[in-house]
Amino acid sequence: MRLATVSRPGGGTGAAVKRGDAWHALPAPDLSALLRTGGADALAQARTQAQAQTRAGEEIVGAVPVLPLPAPAKVLCCGLNYAEHIHEMGRELPSHPTLFAKFADTLAGPRDDLVLPRGLQVDWEAELAVVVGAPLRRADRATALAGIAGYTVANDVSVRDWQNRTTQWLQGKAWDRSCPVGPELVTPDEVDPAAGLEVVCRVNGEEVQRASTRTLVFDAADLLAYVSTFTLLRPGDLVLTGTPGGVGAARDPQRFLADGDVLETSIEGIGTLRNTVRFTP
Amino acid sequence: MRLATVSRPGGGTGAAVKRGDAWHALPAPDLSALLRTGGADALAQARTQAQAQTRAGEEIVGAVPVLPLPAPAKVLCCGLNYAEHIHEMGRELPSHPTLFAKFADTLAGPRDDLVLPRGLQVDWEAELAVVVGAPLRRADRATALAGIAGYTVANDVSVRDWQNRTTQWLQGKAWDRSCPVGPELVTPDEVDPAAGLEVVCRVNGEEVQRASTRTLVFDAADLLAYVSTFTLLRPGDLVLTGTPGGVGAARDPQRFLADGDVLETSIEGIGTLRNTVRFTP
Repeated sequence: MRLATVSRPGGGTGAAVKRGDAWHALPAPDLSALLRTGGADALAQARTQAQAQTRAGEEIVGAVPVLPLPAPAKVLCCGLNYAEHIHEMGRELPSHPTLFAKFADTLAGPRDDLVLPRGLQVDWEAELAVVVGAPLRRADRATALAGIAGYTVANDVSVRDWQNRTTQWLQGKAWDRSCPVGPELVTPDEVDPAAGLEVVCRVNGEEVQRASTRTLVFDAADLLAYVSTFTLLRPGDLVLTGTPGGVGAARDPQRFLADGDVLETSIEGIGTLRNTVRFTP
Repeated sequence: MRLATVSRPGGGTGAAVKRGDAWHALPAPDLSALLRTGGADALAQARTQAQAQTRAGEEIVGAVPVLPLPAPAKVLCCGLNYAEHIHEMGRELPSHPTLFAKFADTLAGPRDDLVLPRGLQVDWEAELAVVVGAPLRRADRATALAGIAGYTVANDVSVRDWQNRTTQWLQGKAWDRSCPVGPELVTPDEVDPAAGLEVVCRVNGEEVQRASTRTLVFDAADLLAYVSTFTLLRPGDLVLTGTPGGVGAARDPQRFLADGDVLETSIEGIGTLRNTVRFTP
């Protein structure tokens, strides 16, 4: 099943489920609200709508996917989670996931421009994102796996000069509307990252990152279980699983995004983000 | 002016303003809601209620301050912000603030037990907390200073073994209900941290930290202005300003909190948190 938050031609947004190429309305203004109020039940009802020919919600003609989760209570990110990227950053394979946070404000839509002040070292980090579907607290791996609502695409766009000003990365990772997410949330019956999905990042059409989610050090269930040890995860929360090798900061010479660059982030079987970088004076 | 979120004897909570020793009701269930919906206007109205004998809200008899801000959109914390603590942790004076995040779930009330699993290295970090009173985006120091709603007390209780598992501190800093905050929000006309307020931490009555907020490397206005460069701060958001020297991890031998330990965190002119550590099996 494929879900999205879509813009309605008349204004506003709606949660929607895909049937064929059409988006059908679900009873919430966005997927954050749908998951927060309904959780797993909301997903089961959406599945009924997606499959039954007779009980479908209204088709939203002209629907365009926007940021699927505008209001997660928590966004956690794992750094250094692909062996290849860990080596390019000059580090050793970790025994524990490296975790940091973003804010809901950090997220951007799948086609949004990424507007940042000129002069920053802006870098790409294509990532698989996991959407929480059930409350998880001190969950084991099996419970965490069963609590996954689905997967989507993210790019943990990073302001490297700010990230490296101090030991803590937050200030390079939490620029408002810098991290595109979407376009669709795909449920685990349709895609299995553990079996291997290709994550690809392109800048102006040139491939800069490619790896399989099979090579994650900590997979989706590992991360949700680990995080749930110290904090409650709720339906609609988002966990980014880390980026593979090929980031601009690790190149020789280093390469950062320029004004007008088109950043494309794809995950096999999930979808593609397409965002243009716009620098303001 | 002194504000709080108080428990009502009949159940539920209410935002309240202090007049003498009495708490008078403000039109919101808590200070998060009051600031989010009203911002500076809500504070001005509260001031009118606090001062006028005739226009007071109902007195809440038996009111007890609880967590003043149950739902901040953002909680940011500054590490390494007192010269003395920076030296005890073996680091150099910083050119930029070291920032990390907590979640709303991380916060606890001023008298709550701090319930954590047995076997963790739980340490104290007494801190001045700044409450945002106006939307701040790319604010200069003067704008940031004018946008401060007030100050309260926090203890950035830290799980050191988890904090030090990786380079990023979040997983040691975001245990649910580990960070007490409160009991009162005191407006800038009553207290001026730049002029120097004593921050004191005691464990079972023994003083373990003492410093003046005058010795902060980055003061409240510095921090709000800096954070507002990359993200919007909203009324009710919370910025913790860092802890002075004397933490348990920096002692020789190291000292961590034990089951039943009473942690008292005081700031001159603001108030005192009193929390008991409770370990679960």
